[in-house]
Amino acid sequence: MTTRKVNLGVVGLGYWGPNLVRNFNEVANCAVVIACDLKQERLNQIKRRYPFIETTTRYENLVSRSDIDAIAIATPVFTHYELAKKALEEGKHVLIEKPVSANVKEAKDLIKIAQDNNKILMVDHTFLYTSSVRKIRELISNGELGELYYFDSVRINLGMFQPDVNVIWDLAPHDISIAHYVIGEEPTSVSAIGKDVNNSGIACIAYITLKFGNGLIAHIHVSWLSPVKVRRTIIGGSKKMIIYDDIEPTEKVKIYDRGVQFDYTKETPFQPTYRLGDIHLPRLEQKEALLVEAEHFIDCILNDKRPLTNGEAGLLVVKALEASDRSLREGGREVMLDND
Amino acid sequence: MTTRKVNLGVVGLGYWGPNLVRNFNEVANCAVVIACDLKQERLNQIKRRYPFIETTTRYENLVSRSDIDAIAIATPVFTHYELAKKALEEGKHVLIEKPVSANVKEAKDLIKIAQDNNKILMVDHTFLYTSSVRKIRELISNGELGELYYFDSVRINLGMFQPDVNVIWDLAPHDISIAHYVIGEEPTSVSAIGKDVNNSGIACIAYITLKFGNGLIAHIHVSWLSPVKVRRTIIGGSKKMIIYDDIEPTEKVKIYDRGVQFDYTKETPFQPTYRLGDIHLPRLEQKEALLVEAEHFIDCILNDKRPLTNGEAGLLVVKALEASDRSLREGGREVMLDND
Amino acid sequence: MTTRKVNLGVVGLGYWGPNLVRNFNEVANCAVVIACDLKQERLNQIKRRYPFIETTTRYENLVSRSDIDAIAIATPVFTHYELAKKALEEGKHVLIEKPVSANVKEAKDLIKIAQDNNKILMVDHTFLYTSSVRKIRELISNGELGELYYFDSVRINLGMFQPDVNVIWDLAPHDISIAHYVIGEEPTSVSAIGKDVNNSGIACIAYITLKFGNGLIAHIHVSWLSPVKVRRTIIGGSKKMIIYDDIEPTEKVKIYDRGVQFDYTKETPFQPTYRLGDIHLPRLEQKEALLVEAEHFIDCILNDKRPLTNGEAGLLVVKALEASDRSLREGGREVMLDND
Amino acid sequence: MTTRKVNLGVVGLGYWGPNLVRNFNEVANCAVVIACDLKQERLNQIKRRYPFIETTTRYENLVSRSDIDAIAIATPVFTHYELAKKALEEGKHVLIEKPVSANVKEAKDLIKIAQDNNKILMVDHTFLYTSSVRKIRELISNGELGELYYFDSVRINLGMFQPDVNVIWDLAPHDISIAHYVIGEEPTSVSAIGKDVNNSGIACIAYITLKFGNGLIAHIHVSWLSPVKVRRTIIGGSKKMIIYDDIEPTEKVKIYDRGVQFDYTKETPFQPTYRLGDIHLPRLEQKEALLVEAEHFIDCILNDKRPLTNGEAGLLVVKALEASDRSLREGGREVMLDND
Repeated sequence: MTTRKVNLGVVGLGYWGPNLVRNFNEVANCAVVIACDLKQERLNQIKRRYPFIETTTRYENLVSRSDIDAIAIATPVFTHYELAKKALEEGKHVLIEKPVSANVKEAKDLIKIAQDNNKILMVDHTFLYTSSVRKIRELISNGELGELYYFDSVRINLGMFQPDVNVIWDLAPHDISIAHYVIGEEPTSVSAIGKDVNNSGIACIAYITLKFGNGLIAHIHVSWLSPVKVRRTIIGGSKKMIIYDDIEPTEKVKIYDRGVQFDYTKETPFQPTYRLGDIHLPRLEQKEALLVEAEHFIDCILNDKRPLTNGEAGLLVVKALEASDRSLREGGREVMLDND
Repeated sequence: MTTRKVNLGVVGLGYWGPNLVRNFNEVANCAVVIACDLKQERLNQIKRRYPFIETTTRYENLVSRSDIDAIAIATPVFTHYELAKKALEEGKHVLIEKPVSANVKEAKDLIKIAQDNNKILMVDHTFLYTSSVRKIRELISNGELGELYYFDSVRINLGMFQPDVNVIWDLAPHDISIAHYVIGEEPTSVSAIGKDVNNSGIACIAYITLKFGNGLIAHIHVSWLSPVKVRRTIIGGSKKMIIYDDIEPTEKVKIYDRGVQFDYTKETPFQPTYRLGDIHLPRLEQKEALLVEAEHFIDCILNDKRPLTNGEAGLLVVKALEASDRSLREGGREVMLDND
Repeated sequence: MTTRKVNLGVVGLGYWGPNLVRNFNEVANCAVVIACDLKQERLNQIKRRYPFIETTTRYENLVSRSDIDAIAIATPVFTHYELAKKALEEGKHVLIEKPVSANVKEAKDLIKIAQDNNKILMVDHTFLYTSSVRKIRELISNGELGELYYFDSVRINLGMFQPDVNVIWDLAPHDISIAHYVIGEEPTSVSAIGKDVNNSGIACIAYITLKFGNGLIAHIHVSWLSPVKVRRTIIGGSKKMIIYDDIEPTEKVKIYDRGVQFDYTKETPFQPTYRLGDIHLPRLEQKEALLVEAEHFIDCILNDKRPLTNGEAGLLVVKALEASDRSLREGGREVMLDND
Repeated sequence: MTTRKVNLGVVGLGYWGPNLVRNFNEVANCAVVIACDLKQERLNQIKRRYPFIETTTRYENLVSRSDIDAIAIATPVFTHYELAKKALEEGKHVLIEKPVSANVKEAKDLIKIAQDNNKILMVDHTFLYTSSVRKIRELISNGELGELYYFDSVRINLGMFQPDVNVIWDLAPHDISIAHYVIGEEPTSVSAIGKDVNNSGIACIAYITLKFGNGLIAHIHVSWLSPVKVRRTIIGGSKKMIIYDDIEPTEKVKIYDRGVQFDYTKETPFQPTYRLGDIHLPRLEQKEALLVEAEHFIDCILNDKRPLTNGEAGLLVVKALEASDRSLREGGREVMLDND
């Protein structure tokens, strides 16, 4: 462990940026030096809470400063590539909000630029830093669920409609990154069905199906147009099943000792046996995921570690998003993913 | 109103048949005269509870009796056609468990046979006889929801795996019939994705998407392999939205005065407005749906009425099921429904 | 095990009686021979469902029949004593709805009469036959909860107002019998506070506190005037805590590995440590409690066993009820229970 | 409205103090100038988040500064009196955490000192600044509930055990102040039953009953030793009933059109009629209550207004707390409150 301090700049102070400021401000060995946004009122609000943070409306004032070590980007998706490229080329480490870029080509480019400049490129897949998702991964990799059958996720709420990306690009990165992380495999195909309600051509409700090499099917329901907020994932295995309800304040992960057995030896009629065992809720740490993630980013920088949610993890998500767009346009056709 | 009495026979005493016996036994102007099943132990159980009901293992003993006016059929799907055909031809009115038949051709045949014999053919789409679904239909047809956007239904539980039909044929008839009834339109296309877990080739998890002429999208998630029972439908409209949770003992229907408005007149940036108004739960009758339905069947017989869930309503469901099978086989391709 | 059959008569066909008929009708070695009520329409309803059961409006027709072995009484409390006394004296075994009698003297009398006639007197404390309550007793007697601190029960709903007894006599017998059974001790004092809303002098809302020898405090909230149904008991121990929610369809018993530790050795300031461990939900049998109880009653008769909920268990409850009435009248004063 | 600015000092940075700092920091016309605590690490934490706020371990540095207009006190209860007295006498306006003081005498003294110095004394009864409680008060004062029957509140959780006050002093001030505010009357008597678990003599579980002049009974269950957090209040009236569940993220207030009617004119047997009507959930503002309260405090100072939760409101709560202590010592005896 070193005692050096990382000087950070934050770009984009809309919905998510202020959370980055607040959490990085709590990380030891990190100083939030400067914040940048095009809107002066957002800068004023940051200034009111953190009078010691410099503010600017010009990205150049940030990216070219030699005392800045790293930049956290929380701007609209279409701007990610240019901002991150510039930062990496200026020798800054970069944390970038999900999805990492607006298309696969950009994501691949950014990975290469980061490598060439020997800088860290990390993607803000926040949920992978929650104790819930980590516990689920642990259970699955320990074999407690047996053979995995399905991953079914619902992430719906009223809003926030985005002007530039559809609901899949806005919300499904969470579920795709979680599925990838806990299953430990990459999806092989994607199909998607969606609907817009304002003739915008931008789907605000969508159903995405991912298939995985091991036969697992992942289904994701995302919506900006639900009367209530739901964030619930069910994972079914041959031995156990999990319900992960992120709305629950504390009882987020329930493990069900439930399943069905088929007796193939008997010549008698079809007679499945249902196992209805106990339910278990493991204790989970309550630490804010974004703080865990911020600490991880700073730790990677100071100690030359590889981030859990690196550029490749981000690329995988963008591949699935791009394929889902194609499937949407082609009436829900299954689109194969090349995992090169 | 007449004072004649309908003499009823019940065929099939597995899971659902005893419920038919119990409810028809409560209907005035109806006498459950005889019950039929291939398994003697099931007959014994009926005999224990209702010693006055005759029992038989031979359908002939039932269908050819001149004092029997009507037959309720709750046998496996593949037997529906033969049993119902015979009953109609013998001049009996028929109530038949959903789905009405194993394919479209059979359903059309049965409709014709019923017409030719001037007998009632009614399909047991039980949920259309609940106060919840009726209230929802009333709200929608009154225009309270505005333009309809989506119908999203989840009907999952652990079991009951069926040996002969997949989970779509087992569970989705409920959602398809509800969607058809409350929306008041027929679906124009179906796509379906599914998964089996025991190499049976019989999907036990499935996602079905129905499209409707008015642009509405209906998505149905059915499963025999969920750790918990969920029966929840969300219906979104431009003015209001509904959550119908059939698991709730009393608070089944919640009406949300929520939505989003887009201001197309402004030249300013994209800025949707969210409406977060009150929530309302209408009082609902608690009467058992199957009793309402049984009374309706008897009333239709005695007073020459047309049943709400007639053969055509059953045919529409079977069309969607048949199309979903085709879509399943063809990787989720959208299959058009001809509504002839 | 004998193959003799118990011939049963049921008296009182209001709310609970039909449940007795239905469940005893399912018990092997038991025949429900005759049912009795003052209201002919209730008898007609039983006749409709069970044409083979004889009905009568006169208790004498029941109690003096030599072919009747046992009588189940589900009439208003004030009639229990006379009906049960008569039945026992006629040589019938008796199952009697809770509370066993309208006062302590009657309960003691009935116990003696039963002894003198060598007949079984069993009280219908139904909840002691649920898998939930039995699991809780097992956990407590195994020491899993550690030292018991409190038992807190809420049993509220809208209705059913009784004309002759207050809400304590109507609902608290459940909680008192459960508390007695799971704690394994008898209460030493009772205090009660109540309120009526219609100047009837009959409390429809009440709060009862029982103290036990081991320092445990049991608090019971009963009400006929709640907008919603709640049936929830929290039991706190030094090691673990339980929430028993009887409204939950399946997840009724939750065991929390939670608690607080005080470090008395440290000289430093007061600093309790909270233990927030896992939550566990044991699998529970789903069998209807009243059927378990009915089978137990028949088993006790046929095999000369002592019922779990015998007259003494019923007496203990009536003692607490009588004391609660005194406390109500005396402004909530703590009334000591003599446990002779 | 004036443009003057209130300079504020905050004393006590344990659990609640940092919330005061955070919220007052958001109020226009208010500057948090200095924060005070005996523990240096707490000051450091404030300094980290708000480098522009001065910190001190000495109250004198705060209270004697002429540029400080107001002081917010969030220290242990036994220190309230001395700190508030000093502040008022130094000409500062005072906001003080609930309960306002450790006994009635101190509360009366503080009210007088505030009057004598013409300064505002406001008590931090936070819940009275929530949209939920305000909506409930509005409904009750509009007569929508009809005659009020009962107020039943449960406020339980695991922790936070206090070293100096019992659970009644810690938690019941919330319920007493809410009851007083929404009912619009003062309680006339108090009784209390409690239990400690560590021989500390400090009850950590308690049941308090307040009676009101209009016959209403308020029952409050508070506990530091519950496995789960519950914050639920049921209010029953002759016309409607309310459930206020503060744990619900958005659906906090449910209004039930439910009740019971007794027909006194009929000569027929007792036959109450139950009204089971609709349920309504009014839309509620989501603004943080402490921010509303902080703005109210500043507004009262700048514009010479009388605070909603003034010293008298605080005194009423302390009277009830003092009486509950007496009742606890005297075995739950009803203690009359003189409302002089």
